[in-house]
Amino acid sequence: MPTVKLVDENDPNPVIQEVFLDIKATKKIDFVPNIWRALATHPQHLQLCWTRLKAIMQPGAVDALTKEIVALAVSVTNSCRYCINSHTAATQKLGLSAEQLGEVLAVVGLFNQMNKLADAYQVGPDILPEQK
Amino acid sequence: MPTVKLVDENDPNPVIQEVFLDIKATKKIDFVPNIWRALATHPQHLQLCWTRLKAIMQPGAVDALTKEIVALAVSVTNSCRYCINSHTAATQKLGLSAEQLGEVLAVVGLFNQMNKLADAYQVGPDILPEQK
Amino acid sequence: MPTVKLVDENDPNPVIQEVFLDIKATKKIDFVPNIWRALATHPQHLQLCWTRLKAIMQPGAVDALTKEIVALAVSVTNSCRYCINSHTAATQKLGLSAEQLGEVLAVVGLFNQMNKLADAYQVGPDILPEQK
Amino acid sequence: MPTVKLVDENDPNPVIQEVFLDIKATKKIDFVPNIWRALATHPQHLQLCWTRLKAIMQPGAVDALTKEIVALAVSVTNSCRYCINSHTAATQKLGLSAEQLGEVLAVVGLFNQMNKLADAYQVGPDILPEQK
Amino acid sequence: MPTVKLVDENDPNPVIQEVFLDIKATKKIDFVPNIWRALATHPQHLQLCWTRLKAIMQPGAVDALTKEIVALAVSVTNSCRYCINSHTAATQKLGLSAEQLGEVLAVVGLFNQMNKLADAYQVGPDILPEQK
Amino acid sequence: MPTVKLVDENDPNPVIQEVFLDIKATKKIDFVPNIWRALATHPQHLQLCWTRLKAIMQPGAVDALTKEIVALAVSVTNSCRYCINSHTAATQKLGLSAEQLGEVLAVVGLFNQMNKLADAYQVGPDILPEQK
Repeated sequence: MPTVKLVDENDPNPVIQEVFLDIKATKKIDFVPNIWRALATHPQHLQLCWTRLKAIMQPGAVDALTKEIVALAVSVTNSCRYCINSHTAATQKLGLSAEQLGEVLAVVGLFNQMNKLADAYQVGPDILPEQK
Repeated sequence: MPTVKLVDENDPNPVIQEVFLDIKATKKIDFVPNIWRALATHPQHLQLCWTRLKAIMQPGAVDALTKEIVALAVSVTNSCRYCINSHTAATQKLGLSAEQLGEVLAVVGLFNQMNKLADAYQVGPDILPEQK
Repeated sequence: MPTVKLVDENDPNPVIQEVFLDIKATKKIDFVPNIWRALATHPQHLQLCWTRLKAIMQPGAVDALTKEIVALAVSVTNSCRYCINSHTAATQKLGLSAEQLGEVLAVVGLFNQMNKLADAYQVGPDILPEQK
Repeated sequence: MPTVKLVDENDPNPVIQEVFLDIKATKKIDFVPNIWRALATHPQHLQLCWTRLKAIMQPGAVDALTKEIVALAVSVTNSCRYCINSHTAATQKLGLSAEQLGEVLAVVGLFNQMNKLADAYQVGPDILPEQK
Repeated sequence: MPTVKLVDENDPNPVIQEVFLDIKATKKIDFVPNIWRALATHPQHLQLCWTRLKAIMQPGAVDALTKEIVALAVSVTNSCRYCINSHTAATQKLGLSAEQLGEVLAVVGLFNQMNKLADAYQVGPDILPEQK
Repeated sequence: MPTVKLVDENDPNPVIQEVFLDIKATKKIDFVPNIWRALATHPQHLQLCWTRLKAIMQPGAVDALTKEIVALAVSVTNSCRYCINSHTAATQKLGLSAEQLGEVLAVVGLFNQMNKLADAYQVGPDILPEQK
């Protein structure tokens, strides 16, 4: 259960209305996801979060699907339930197949293991041949 | 400083030799990275880790660069110094430009924030219109 | 569902009774929160945890509300569901307004992002002018 | 060692110049901290990060010192070396005494423990008397 | 709710069948735990994960119960709900008493605290007398 | 570099002296490890941490080596450099062989992977046959 009362989709606050409309238009959906309704309890923070997310997630030198895959990898590593659900859905919507999802998650699992082994043994960075 | 004595690249143990040769051949490098020399203190574990990493990281339904980007995103989220260094280098070797690296890390930073905000407000999963 | 059977509030064990009474008196509540009923499965650990928490959380050089805000910031960063719920409630009871909660969580989100960017780029500590 | 070449403080890019000047003016320092010089390798991301950090960290319903304490609590929980250094320094500059720092860190340590105990026992949220 | 459709225990895929039978025989249970049914959505990854888990978890220089205790300590530190449940059950099946479980979790809680205090103060490694 | 000035081993404060002497006697060492010298900047917190660590780490229903193995598993999962060093040394002092250390770390690596895969697929707890 949320720790705050989710803001209604039709809340009259103009900052909230502008962001909510832009979220629905940008994501091409007809409802406002719960995270944005929670953030709307502090309208200025809602606006800061949304304008920044929109700027970072738009396709640029890196395509939209790769960005969503990175979002999923981060969310799994942080064990964020809400975000794992929404980014798994988002990658599928952008065309990630079941086989590709399996491969991505295999890589995520692998490096959660390897990261800890590297830390466990406290290995220093490799001296590459050209740096010797 | 490593917590174990790194195994020499020319260690005569046949399991170690086989893995070390395969690492150099597969990665097209002429030295054995430190993490593998640390893992070689337990040859069976070295072999399990390497054969699995090799299987998971080979290009399949997902290409090699995307897999390295995922490895980097996981390593940053886990703050693993050694792995951040090696996967930043690996993505660059596979062609990731400075601008693309900047975009990938922007996405990594963004969702480390959003994950915690979703947890902070304890929002439940969205009920999608088609599920209502 | 808890992994252990929660200890009854009226359990006759004298160590448990003493701690449970002190929890209710100190927190001015008339029930024992679930975490303490779980810890009571090992009475000595219950006592160690409670006496230490009571000592650390009492107002000292830092006031009670700031301590609860820190508790909430840690709990969110660790994504601990039970603790996020109880420390959000505790900060509100001590007078944190909805606007203040929004600002605190904005700071928590911000530094979960900035921490990872600092790690991603592996930046070393700043050399301050006076140390040059 | 940073994974990217830190951008020079006098880099002529106008976006970078504007942000660097604002950082120095806002923080009343005469050098640009390393994290911002690393982020400047992607000027748009630098700008997004700085404008948002400036907006969130300015005193509002929550004062500047409390915000820095929260930043420190998050950075310690994430074990971010660079950020622990800079936010410890920032809290001291804003007047946090040695005794207060000790108390803040005691609370941070305490809830890193309690968070894991709550997760270990998988306790559900408390049903408060008024909700029974 | 799982993000993928769990694979049926009787799925005809021969790789899946072989692994599922081996899981039930090795663990002496008559059902396939959910995690393996989720991993079976990518049969090759299922096989890699299972053969490796089986190899690492079999009693060797370290006994089975100690290995399960380590698995539980890791799962609690990562706050993994599913794994905390299954490894708590597994340690009990191998004979860990309620008192021993309490002591193990006390150690887990303690070092989640001490780890963060060591990071908070950024203490360097001890110079042992023999190394002076 | 530590964020505070480490307290001298011969500091005259009676609380500090009592704890420092007890640390050296209990651990049978002739110096005070750095973490305790950092904690001594807040003598009451030093005392709380030490008395609790001493109580939890003494052999009880679980032996001293198993407790140190758990401490190491937690420290690796949290990537705490100082603690990984000291608990690796402590387990070796208590007799953990190189082969056993390799097996323990293999288990730690394995479940850092499996924890994230369980989270990635959001699998619910298994319904055990007797509970059906």
